Amino acid sequence: MPLLNPNRLFPTENRTRDLARGLYQSIENLPIISPHGHCDPRWFAENQRFPNPAELFVVPDHYAFRMLVSRGVTMEDLSIPRNDGAEGIVDPKEVWRSLAKNFHLFRGTPTSMWLEHSFEQVFGIDVALSAETADFYYETIDKKLASPDFLPRALFERFNIEVLSTTESALDDLKWHKQISASGWDGRIVTTYRPDAVVDPEFEGFTQNVSALGDLTGEDVSSWIGYLRAHRVRREFFKQHGATASDHGHLTANTADLSKVDAEELYSKVVSGKASATEADLFRGQMLTEMARMSLDDGLTLQIHAGSRRNHHAGVLSVYGRDKGFDIPGRTDYVEALQPLLNTVGFEPGLKIILFTLDETTYSRELAPLAGAYPCLLLGPPWWFFDSYEGIKRFRETTTETCGFYNTAGFNDDTRAFCSIPARHDVARRSDCAYLANLVATGRLREDEAYQVAYDLTYKLAKDAYNL
Amino acid sequence: MPLLNPNRLFPTENRTRDLARGLYQSIENLPIISPHGHCDPRWFAENQRFPNPAELFVVPDHYAFRMLVSRGVTMEDLSIPRNDGAEGIVDPKEVWRSLAKNFHLFRGTPTSMWLEHSFEQVFGIDVALSAETADFYYETIDKKLASPDFLPRALFERFNIEVLSTTESALDDLKWHKQISASGWDGRIVTTYRPDAVVDPEFEGFTQNVSALGDLTGEDVSSWIGYLRAHRVRREFFKQHGATASDHGHLTANTADLSKVDAEELYSKVVSGKASATEADLFRGQMLTEMARMSLDDGLTLQIHAGSRRNHHAGVLSVYGRDKGFDIPGRTDYVEALQPLLNTVGFEPGLKIILFTLDETTYSRELAPLAGAYPCLLLGPPWWFFDSYEGIKRFRETTTETCGFYNTAGFNDDTRAFCSIPARHDVARRSDCAYLANLVATGRLREDEAYQVAYDLTYKLAKDAYNL
Amino acid sequence: MPLLNPNRLFPTENRTRDLARGLYQSIENLPIISPHGHCDPRWFAENQRFPNPAELFVVPDHYAFRMLVSRGVTMEDLSIPRNDGAEGIVDPKEVWRSLAKNFHLFRGTPTSMWLEHSFEQVFGIDVALSAETADFYYETIDKKLASPDFLPRALFERFNIEVLSTTESALDDLKWHKQISASGWDGRIVTTYRPDAVVDPEFEGFTQNVSALGDLTGEDVSSWIGYLRAHRVRREFFKQHGATASDHGHLTANTADLSKVDAEELYSKVVSGKASATEADLFRGQMLTEMARMSLDDGLTLQIHAGSRRNHHAGVLSVYGRDKGFDIPGRTDYVEALQPLLNTVGFEPGLKIILFTLDETTYSRELAPLAGAYPCLLLGPPWWFFDSYEGIKRFRETTTETCGFYNTAGFNDDTRAFCSIPARHDVARRSDCAYLANLVATGRLREDEAYQVAYDLTYKLAKDAYNL
Repeated sequence: MPLLNPNRLFPTENRTRDLARGLYQSIENLPIISPHGHCDPRWFAENQRFPNPAELFVVPDHYAFRMLVSRGVTMEDLSIPRNDGAEGIVDPKEVWRSLAKNFHLFRGTPTSMWLEHSFEQVFGIDVALSAETADFYYETIDKKLASPDFLPRALFERFNIEVLSTTESALDDLKWHKQISASGWDGRIVTTYRPDAVVDPEFEGFTQNVSALGDLTGEDVSSWIGYLRAHRVRREFFKQHGATASDHGHLTANTADLSKVDAEELYSKVVSGKASATEADLFRGQMLTEMARMSLDDGLTLQIHAGSRRNHHAGVLSVYGRDKGFDIPGRTDYVEALQPLLNTVGFEPGLKIILFTLDETTYSRELAPLAGAYPCLLLGPPWWFFDSYEGIKRFRETTTETCGFYNTAGFNDDTRAFCSIPARHDVARRSDCAYLANLVATGRLREDEAYQVAYDLTYKLAKDAYNL
Repeated sequence: MPLLNPNRLFPTENRTRDLARGLYQSIENLPIISPHGHCDPRWFAENQRFPNPAELFVVPDHYAFRMLVSRGVTMEDLSIPRNDGAEGIVDPKEVWRSLAKNFHLFRGTPTSMWLEHSFEQVFGIDVALSAETADFYYETIDKKLASPDFLPRALFERFNIEVLSTTESALDDLKWHKQISASGWDGRIVTTYRPDAVVDPEFEGFTQNVSALGDLTGEDVSSWIGYLRAHRVRREFFKQHGATASDHGHLTANTADLSKVDAEELYSKVVSGKASATEADLFRGQMLTEMARMSLDDGLTLQIHAGSRRNHHAGVLSVYGRDKGFDIPGRTDYVEALQPLLNTVGFEPGLKIILFTLDETTYSRELAPLAGAYPCLLLGPPWWFFDSYEGIKRFRETTTETCGFYNTAGFNDDTRAFCSIPARHDVARRSDCAYLANLVATGRLREDEAYQVAYDLTYKLAKDAYNL
Repeated sequence: MPLLNPNRLFPTENRTRDLARGLYQSIENLPIISPHGHCDPRWFAENQRFPNPAELFVVPDHYAFRMLVSRGVTMEDLSIPRNDGAEGIVDPKEVWRSLAKNFHLFRGTPTSMWLEHSFEQVFGIDVALSAETADFYYETIDKKLASPDFLPRALFERFNIEVLSTTESALDDLKWHKQISASGWDGRIVTTYRPDAVVDPEFEGFTQNVSALGDLTGEDVSSWIGYLRAHRVRREFFKQHGATASDHGHLTANTADLSKVDAEELYSKVVSGKASATEADLFRGQMLTEMARMSLDDGLTLQIHAGSRRNHHAGVLSVYGRDKGFDIPGRTDYVEALQPLLNTVGFEPGLKIILFTLDETTYSRELAPLAGAYPCLLLGPPWWFFDSYEGIKRFRETTTETCGFYNTAGFNDDTRAFCSIPARHDVARRSDCAYLANLVATGRLREDEAYQVAYDLTYKLAKDAYNL
């Protein structure tokens, strides 16, 4: 019995389901454009086998392990590596069993759909995961991982990925990207300029980071002008390794447009470590506007991922570090927040700013009205918790009527779980086709238009938005 | 091939669709009650032909042109008139071509449904609008506009409008309404008292406006009492021209109930131009309560349209002026905001206050609980960005369970696009019938009840709410 | 003609409806677990007949009478008892007629479903309630209420209630629970520890209440330590009368984790009546953390019901008192609010904290991410205004994808309307089965999994969450 229902995510009513299936069949084999994510470029540079099923599917994926933790499995049980460098000591087979015997926790979640898609489509398994089948699963996957067909580059090709963007710190030496280029392999893997560590005064080690930025670029980062020049130099370096975008993970979407004098003064406070929380936020906001100005020159698309209250539990942060499932969304304002930036560059031709949110209430109230007016704005796809059937449905239902399809930026998988990439794109494609079929069936779109839109949502909009 | 699907907006499942169609057929030909909108009374006073397709469908309609602007068409390309009085100089045929070749931007939006409804039902066109058909469209529409059947009064009659409310500033001389009355034409067009310009201390020219209010009424507007009397005089004047309601477009829904002494003091600050932003908001809030008190005497229904952050882009405001598509909704509170007013007049018999919002999160959390408790409160229909199939669906789904149907005020088209009136009412009627059919099909309402509710939502509730 | 459609609340598409019906049939006869509510234990202690239909269905139920009030029926017309002890003087038959002739106001609301379920299933009536049938209804119900089969205990048994939790003030003597125990009747009715009156410095009579707490326990409540000990004593007393949970109705979800010194200082301010509003909120927040610490020892589940702006209309409060339908939800934050408590006890094994909200925007943004990470957190079912088909649908759609089913706590009826208990559980069971059927039909859950989840949602999760 296959794990996957071939009609999954399509509408239940027959005619609408047939419409959805027709649309889906027209785009299901299009190449994957993955313009934003967190895969490790080292995988493709070294092309070594993935170590084992637990380290492929559980240990690095906070979607998976936080759910287990939420029902009492401990981080230790799951061999989550500690901040002090201590590796987990639990046998990976035991970690896998923890996932298997608690797999019911994922019922109704996209994580279970992504995992089952990988199990069936990538590893050819056709029984459900449970305590009983845990070891069968482990051995089947582990054995396949050892074969050449399951090396990172082979999977990349099998997944039909046309381009994959990774995300690197502004201080990264991009050596894995260099190694990929040098290898002669023709998989297209590009980097993205993520300068949080040198833009956010509240980031761990900010002042040292800025100093390192100066060393890397030879610019005098003690001055505001030198600091900005250093960014331009690094952006150019990232562009040489394929970057077509920058990305900014900020607590708020606040932007600023300070006078040069005020910006200089703020920078000197910030770089000396004396900025208050308000000044830190103001500086991040000023830097979004500066980054937009740099985009006018170098053409990088600017992505804003705002609103995560990261590291909610102090104990988890101190023992296990960042990105451990304890990042919680919060209310986020975009209307006043983006006004300084938009008043400055909102009408600049060619500028592309992609907005992401973890506050779904802003879709209809703020983001769609903004994107439906300002030429520079595009809406990114549903992010993180909302990259799911219902999440995508709510996104389409609450944005399309105000800003249409053509102010959106296609799909991002935004994942560090490589094997979930085809699954995530498949969920997005099916969910979009379901939505389009419903528009056709209710007379809100003609069928020929729906086919065009399905193609655009799957392929064209992402390529255009990211200049790929 | 017709542009419009005869089953549009009905549920897809057969039995539910049949229920919806039956309900719709019972109300589709009821006259249109349009109790709130922004049509220009001059059209009906002068009864001149509409100039051309671009000036009918694009130039005055910020729904249409902001979407084009959002994807890079310029205001100039669209001949949007400038604030300095300069008219657009682009050939209207070119403006129309801009709409036509970008018409895919509107896919999935209510604007495309409204436009196609007008194209087919008003102008008899049965091909889709595109770059190829742009000139055919232009000529067809332009030719028809020249015929007597397409003059404003003829269209008003053809649209089966029983009553149309326009909205005029408190300082308006209502000359077009007088001219309509004097003409002997029996179309019922009434005005609405909109005093923002003399109530909002942050309105352009506020102090001069107040002074003009004094001149118009002969009241001494240097005193609080005289100022309030001047409003009573103007309300009476508006009533003589058919007004049954006042309307208030405020940044927040804040209300106040100051002592006479405090109100006098606040007024003297406000009228001398010395009020802070907080005081300005307090004054607007006090005036909502004062207007409610006047309603107790003169019976005007009080409408509150709160929450638009108007003129978000300073450059668009300075060059093109207000109402140019750059008004963005924001979070709006009603619970604390309305408390002063409701504590004062919330139980007054006969008082009717209709609440509108651009913050859909307030439907279930604030507005339905308030309207489901206070006798004076009614909920207006989904406003602006939410006057659409999904918007209406969300409104019904999130309000009905708490305040039922009978604490709502029927439909408003709220439009300045005359030809869209039948289309907008048709969307509302179909959307409501779809919702009712779904209630019947899921055993939440009996069929005979649904027929009654369909009639009430289409016709009776609006007439009752606005005393029409 | 029966009032109730046997397929009510099931999906309309045939196959999905069949799936839902199958799921429902597997759980419809499971016993009712009612772990949180406001029934009066006196009913079961004395087992006297309910006085009449009006006092059974209208007078005590703010869901019913606030809707009538919202359309102009007065509190007086409905014999709502006054705060000064004056009983209503309107003939209960007239009160009933007010309900009957205005019953259309409830169309589309859960109240109409609950009432019709009671009318048909409990009282065997099969005609619709209206002005015409009002007296027939009154006489039929009144006559039945006089028979032994309609006494409270008989109904309790007929309703197949396995356990019913009531909610009592920390100062309650629990005499009705004692009387139930002493009577030898084997219906399981347990109390819940609700200490708002002695925890909330803004509660009416707070200082006297605290003093009474001292008297009841013999602890020295002039000291912080004595006050905490007094709570422990009372919690133990409540446990002896069956309590497995405490419950906290707070304006916000704020928590605190003060040092002992700061907590002592705050307590001395609070108990002397000198606390500011901010300090009062801080104290309530500190007490949530203290209650969680006590739960670590005594095992009571901690419930937080946050966000109601109670007693919105001052006049209603002063004349009619609390709980009269004028409690309005407001925006509520959980992310920062719960952080102090979660940082302290969030990972304590065995701790169970159940969160409720009146702000649905927090489901996907805050509550599901929190419950999907912290081991101690569970989500309570949709509360108050959202205990309905659409409310349950939104809850499942916005929480399941992030925290699954197993971070939720089953259903609560939370009612003071005894006869509505079977109706409310039936709505929840049907709504959940409809949701599950839709997951199966769209390939998001396998059918065998859905049957397991239906059982868990109906029965197991509530028993587990409340240690019943």
